[in-house]
Amino acid sequence: MLTTRQDCQRLDDEDPLAALRELFAMPAGVLYFDGNSLGAQPAATSARVQQVVASEWGQELVRGWNTADWIDLPQRVGDKIARLVGAGAGELVAVDSTSVNLFKVLSVALNFARTDAPGRNVILSERHNFPTDLYIAESLARERGLVLQLVDSGEIRAHLTDRVAVLMLTHVNYRDGRMHAMAEINRVAHAAGALVVWDLAHSAGALPVDLKAGGLSDEAADFAVGCGYKYLNGGPGAPAFVWAHPEHTARMDAQQLGQPLSGWLGHAAPFEFAPAYRPGVGIARFICGTPPIISLAALECGVDTVLAAEPLGGLPALRRKSLALSELFILLADARCHGRGLVLRTPRDPRLRGSQVSFAHEDGAGAIMQALVARNVIGDFRAPDVLRFGITPPYMRYTDVWDAVEHLRQVLDSGEWRADRFSRLKAVT
Amino acid sequence: MLTTRQDCQRLDDEDPLAALRELFAMPAGVLYFDGNSLGAQPAATSARVQQVVASEWGQELVRGWNTADWIDLPQRVGDKIARLVGAGAGELVAVDSTSVNLFKVLSVALNFARTDAPGRNVILSERHNFPTDLYIAESLARERGLVLQLVDSGEIRAHLTDRVAVLMLTHVNYRDGRMHAMAEINRVAHAAGALVVWDLAHSAGALPVDLKAGGLSDEAADFAVGCGYKYLNGGPGAPAFVWAHPEHTARMDAQQLGQPLSGWLGHAAPFEFAPAYRPGVGIARFICGTPPIISLAALECGVDTVLAAEPLGGLPALRRKSLALSELFILLADARCHGRGLVLRTPRDPRLRGSQVSFAHEDGAGAIMQALVARNVIGDFRAPDVLRFGITPPYMRYTDVWDAVEHLRQVLDSGEWRADRFSRLKAVT
Repeated sequence: MLTTRQDCQRLDDEDPLAALRELFAMPAGVLYFDGNSLGAQPAATSARVQQVVASEWGQELVRGWNTADWIDLPQRVGDKIARLVGAGAGELVAVDSTSVNLFKVLSVALNFARTDAPGRNVILSERHNFPTDLYIAESLARERGLVLQLVDSGEIRAHLTDRVAVLMLTHVNYRDGRMHAMAEINRVAHAAGALVVWDLAHSAGALPVDLKAGGLSDEAADFAVGCGYKYLNGGPGAPAFVWAHPEHTARMDAQQLGQPLSGWLGHAAPFEFAPAYRPGVGIARFICGTPPIISLAALECGVDTVLAAEPLGGLPALRRKSLALSELFILLADARCHGRGLVLRTPRDPRLRGSQVSFAHEDGAGAIMQALVARNVIGDFRAPDVLRFGITPPYMRYTDVWDAVEHLRQVLDSGEWRADRFSRLKAVT
Repeated sequence: MLTTRQDCQRLDDEDPLAALRELFAMPAGVLYFDGNSLGAQPAATSARVQQVVASEWGQELVRGWNTADWIDLPQRVGDKIARLVGAGAGELVAVDSTSVNLFKVLSVALNFARTDAPGRNVILSERHNFPTDLYIAESLARERGLVLQLVDSGEIRAHLTDRVAVLMLTHVNYRDGRMHAMAEINRVAHAAGALVVWDLAHSAGALPVDLKAGGLSDEAADFAVGCGYKYLNGGPGAPAFVWAHPEHTARMDAQQLGQPLSGWLGHAAPFEFAPAYRPGVGIARFICGTPPIISLAALECGVDTVLAAEPLGGLPALRRKSLALSELFILLADARCHGRGLVLRTPRDPRLRGSQVSFAHEDGAGAIMQALVARNVIGDFRAPDVLRFGITPPYMRYTDVWDAVEHLRQVLDSGEWRADRFSRLKAVT
């Protein structure tokens, strides 16, 4: 059994992905376990953003839309993200926020259901889905007179009745890191007559995602959205992304259907300035207003850091390292923090685990995390009782895990987290 | 009458706002008349963006949400924009795109009408309003079974019947630069029982806007949105802004009403991660997902360039200079380009003019503008036949106007715009 820091050091030395860390500008002395909230800064971002501001905007001014190809940036970045989630080129765009994109695809999915199965009036989701997903679904359910039904993770199949129009899930849960079996759920939901909308916030860029299930259409997802600022390293509030299965966009093309946020850049010919909306072809109709170019350029740098793993084995290799790191975290915490009030919340079964390790602590989770942050071990706290440690294989080392668990043990043993200064917590996204 | 370049040079020498140009990093040799499409780059933006990327994100990582106060950025930038549009602190937030924000406020206005006057089923707007506004209204009208009625600019009053729920207008028209009398229209619309939603894309930062009409509630606007990348100099695709009259947000507070894009950062307590949506107080409920921080920080630099005019007379002084520049442009074009096929589209009456000068040219507008751009005189073309010259008083000189008209005359006289290379045009936003 692995027990020493020296063992971890050897794993680092032998890590085939070790070179990827050089793609990031990591601050010295920080053990970063919060890349599932905000990914670290790619080394290339600073110069790229500078180029956009000083040259493409500053020198080219409005001409930048053409000369620097800003106008195609949502598609260009989208095509890169598509490679990470099993989607094809031209099927995915990087725009708006996850919440806004979810509103678009959930609206379209509900429109399809309204046409195809008007008796279905339920949006089914998981009780512990990320709140913004639930809020958007709640809003659409209220406006359309539908029911948002929330069930526990294990009860989803049992609730896939003939009343369900859309099943909306997040692939990996933000709090406990539990991962759904996407293809299997798609198959079951489709057999039950429901469409499936996936939020990939905690999986895109972290592990292999196969939206199209290798072409098996009953196992393919219908719609997906995802986040640019977590495992894609796009920077704070980076634009999100949106994907629709080509069968759905083909139907939308054939029937000239739009989505409700019909902004001008999703028009078939924005620069005709026509008074009536005519949706763009394919996924382009999911673009809405003018996208924030500086942030979008930063997102591209972030996506490039994940694509840089391709010659080293790509997402399967990142997944192997991620599981090795999370397994190590769990084993070390078991061995070294035993009996100190931590309860593992992340599944022990690696097939059910995303790319994080979460522990509950009955009354100290927030303060314990603050005490760790004061030691430059940065994870985060999720109300009410969860300590969350994100695992980011491109820039994380095995010794980081050793050191983090050692700090955790010291914080728990010393009781330093009970200090007044850690008693109040301002949480972060 | 003003006729020589020397006269223009004297106006520049005496310009009390001349120092503002130093706040911008203007490329050498360019005459920039497209700040109403994309504002020029503030000199401060480059270093500020660098700070956000390299220090706030790169060094602080996720802690930046607190230590760099990213979480309050929509409100902080919003408070600054509020000073430019006659709104109060805490009434306006900088988030999302104009299109997305319009969807929010138009939805809320229609919800109010549905409650207060269920018989009203018309959204009234102007036929030549900017298309994205019309597309969003078209989408909402379709979903709710309402009618989007489009009329000519001069026919609005005549169509303010008891069927109209919401009047939606852009303060200054993007194509011809005609400005609506906002307070008067608000008064007439309110007397007719309609709510008024304004798009300030071509007025915020360009001229005084008084959304609250000095407190006269029947002359005050109900809702407003606006653009960050035109006269606010926020950079390509900069976040937009959204405002609601405090009476409306007070009602929403009292009745716990949200808006349809109920993303988590508009929740009253996002970090409680509660499963049910509870709208934030006041304008905060109009925030949706996580905003693009790098682009939002750039927007703040842009807004600061307009606020920098405050000690020099503020927006009234900018307005005086804008009208002097547009008046000069019109007079010089009258005098020097007469008989060459240009037809002024912008109102000659300065009270009806925004901050641009537009000409129609029957068959050559696109090619003429391309020929001007080839001479580094950058305006833009708006289909089908409009040459558009934006007037941006913080960084525009009277001699720029002289030189631009001179280039325009030469392009028209030489016929160089008929060259093949100018025959096809890729338009820009």
